[in-house]
Amino acid sequence: MQTLNVDLGERSYPIFIGKDLLRQTELIEPYVIGHQVMIVSNETIAPLYLEKVKNTFSQYEVHTCILPDGEQYKNLEVVNQIFDALLTNRFERKCTLVALGGGVIGDMTGFAAATYQRGVAFIQIPTTLLAQVDSSVGGKTGVNHELGKNMIGAFHQPQCVIADTDTLDTLDDRQLSAGIAEVIKYGLIRDKEFFTWLETNMQKLLARDPAALAYTIERSCQNKAEVVAEDEKEGGVRATLNLGHTFGHAIEAATGYGNWLHGEAVGTGMLMAGDLSCRMSMLTEADVHRIDNIIDAAQLPTRSPSKMDYDVFMKYMSVDKKVEAGAIRFVLLKAIGKSVITSDYDPALLRQTITAHHANT
Amino acid sequence: MQTLNVDLGERSYPIFIGKDLLRQTELIEPYVIGHQVMIVSNETIAPLYLEKVKNTFSQYEVHTCILPDGEQYKNLEVVNQIFDALLTNRFERKCTLVALGGGVIGDMTGFAAATYQRGVAFIQIPTTLLAQVDSSVGGKTGVNHELGKNMIGAFHQPQCVIADTDTLDTLDDRQLSAGIAEVIKYGLIRDKEFFTWLETNMQKLLARDPAALAYTIERSCQNKAEVVAEDEKEGGVRATLNLGHTFGHAIEAATGYGNWLHGEAVGTGMLMAGDLSCRMSMLTEADVHRIDNIIDAAQLPTRSPSKMDYDVFMKYMSVDKKVEAGAIRFVLLKAIGKSVITSDYDPALLRQTITAHHANT
Repeated sequence: MQTLNVDLGERSYPIFIGKDLLRQTELIEPYVIGHQVMIVSNETIAPLYLEKVKNTFSQYEVHTCILPDGEQYKNLEVVNQIFDALLTNRFERKCTLVALGGGVIGDMTGFAAATYQRGVAFIQIPTTLLAQVDSSVGGKTGVNHELGKNMIGAFHQPQCVIADTDTLDTLDDRQLSAGIAEVIKYGLIRDKEFFTWLETNMQKLLARDPAALAYTIERSCQNKAEVVAEDEKEGGVRATLNLGHTFGHAIEAATGYGNWLHGEAVGTGMLMAGDLSCRMSMLTEADVHRIDNIIDAAQLPTRSPSKMDYDVFMKYMSVDKKVEAGAIRFVLLKAIGKSVITSDYDPALLRQTITAHHANT
Repeated sequence: MQTLNVDLGERSYPIFIGKDLLRQTELIEPYVIGHQVMIVSNETIAPLYLEKVKNTFSQYEVHTCILPDGEQYKNLEVVNQIFDALLTNRFERKCTLVALGGGVIGDMTGFAAATYQRGVAFIQIPTTLLAQVDSSVGGKTGVNHELGKNMIGAFHQPQCVIADTDTLDTLDDRQLSAGIAEVIKYGLIRDKEFFTWLETNMQKLLARDPAALAYTIERSCQNKAEVVAEDEKEGGVRATLNLGHTFGHAIEAATGYGNWLHGEAVGTGMLMAGDLSCRMSMLTEADVHRIDNIIDAAQLPTRSPSKMDYDVFMKYMSVDKKVEAGAIRFVLLKAIGKSVITSDYDPALLRQTITAHHANT
């Protein structure tokens, strides 16, 4: 087992990465607050792991709340089902919520924990690669609004994160690739050496080689933990973690949440960010090809939806959280491993980028 | 104009109290973030003050969101109307929400500000006595759930509070008395001198004597600001501000939000807390009579709803935020001006208190 620490002063917490962690009561126990535990999961994950996790918390008063599976359910109405479960079972302010699932379950459970009785404790048990390497770490919680992704939320750090690599055995290939998109992101924004390693080892990752997966999760979490420790509330460098997300969030919202997986949309978004960086003479064509190749090798989509022309992209991108004084702020690349945040882009070049990535071009 | 400061380090902010403050652009301007302003109000207040406040913000891009009036609308569904308005008008992270109304508008607008894009700025412009002396100060925001009052929320401090005493001219008598309940509370929990002043000056307050009202608001805000500065997140002494609220929240929830005003329920709740304190031999009968007399003089109800027997009270009080390890934590009184928090009460005496205050007893 590997242990990483997210260094946030009194809100610091550990990330545990390894095999067979779900049943390790003595590992998790120090992070439980109160005597009541609400395990929140979804209809896909619960049949696989819920009983095991319930046993791990058997010395507490355990309740469960099972939500439908999918990004299309990440909204206020479904979060209210968690509040219903908490109040029906008379959960007190000193209690612990446990998020057992992927990024959607983690984001909604975290938001419920941030706002139930103005804030209670929660533990992240991510069961997808994407959640293990990204969304479970860093305290961003929230839900979507039909007009924009993650528009309603709060910063609320978990007590700890338990990344049990065994849970990836049950992940389908599409979800695995979606997680790899966020892994590639760390290489692109700040870790060139890792990017090169990923280029060499992509087939091993797709084949779920345990050593390759473990290394990938650890190195990704290390990158994420460093960025979050430096800038918890995204006043500066944390925004580079959003590489590809401005384009990606627009794709998710415009196509209807759940049709594109978040990681798929981010993968295509990173291609587009690379392309725009190149058109702006910041990034070499050779680097753009490396990005294209690795996204393709990860079996991620490389074209945006055909119905998303410039106007559609602009409609959704203009309500992105990164908009400031009317200008969209993009994360762009100066090289593999070097990112910048800028709102100083040429709209004509942005139009070219969007057009060049249409599914029908 | 009086200025009080709520001392919370980098989250400190001023409370401005005085006449004709709504139109003072230069007073408010330093507290506006960004160039977009969303004024949230309700159907009762908007016809009275919205145009005036819009003019005050005329140099910004101003939008408005008018909600229905009443505690029964303080829920997630209605908060979503604020999110709709923000997203439809493409509000950015750097923007300012303005709460123009009573406690319900302040709580909902504050919660929307706490969670829109994971937190944006807001300004409180309270237009009821209750909001001016209590709910607009201290950063508690949130909404009700049908099973419990204020169960969903966040701590989120405003940029400033503008208490324009002119707005009280349009307040109806019932709302005025409800506000006086929270004023009496400060006397009871920590300010005996103020309590004595209130006993002497209650008729002036009910007659809306401007000097009496101004003094009352200032002294109440001073008390609130001191408590909040000492204990922002309610780890200790702040909980004493909940005197009467455990009983009161149960009355509000059980009778259906909006039927009893919050201040009315708190008024009756304070009587019950005083009665329980006396039965537990903490408070003299003479002090109980003083409490009974002042609540009655403030034209507040002195009996709980007849349908609320012991079991109904216990059902609702057991999901109160102050419950810990299964035990209800009451704020009780040792004297006028001296409060304690305890979960060490005799259930038989609690039953006597509840029975003694039935409307039909």
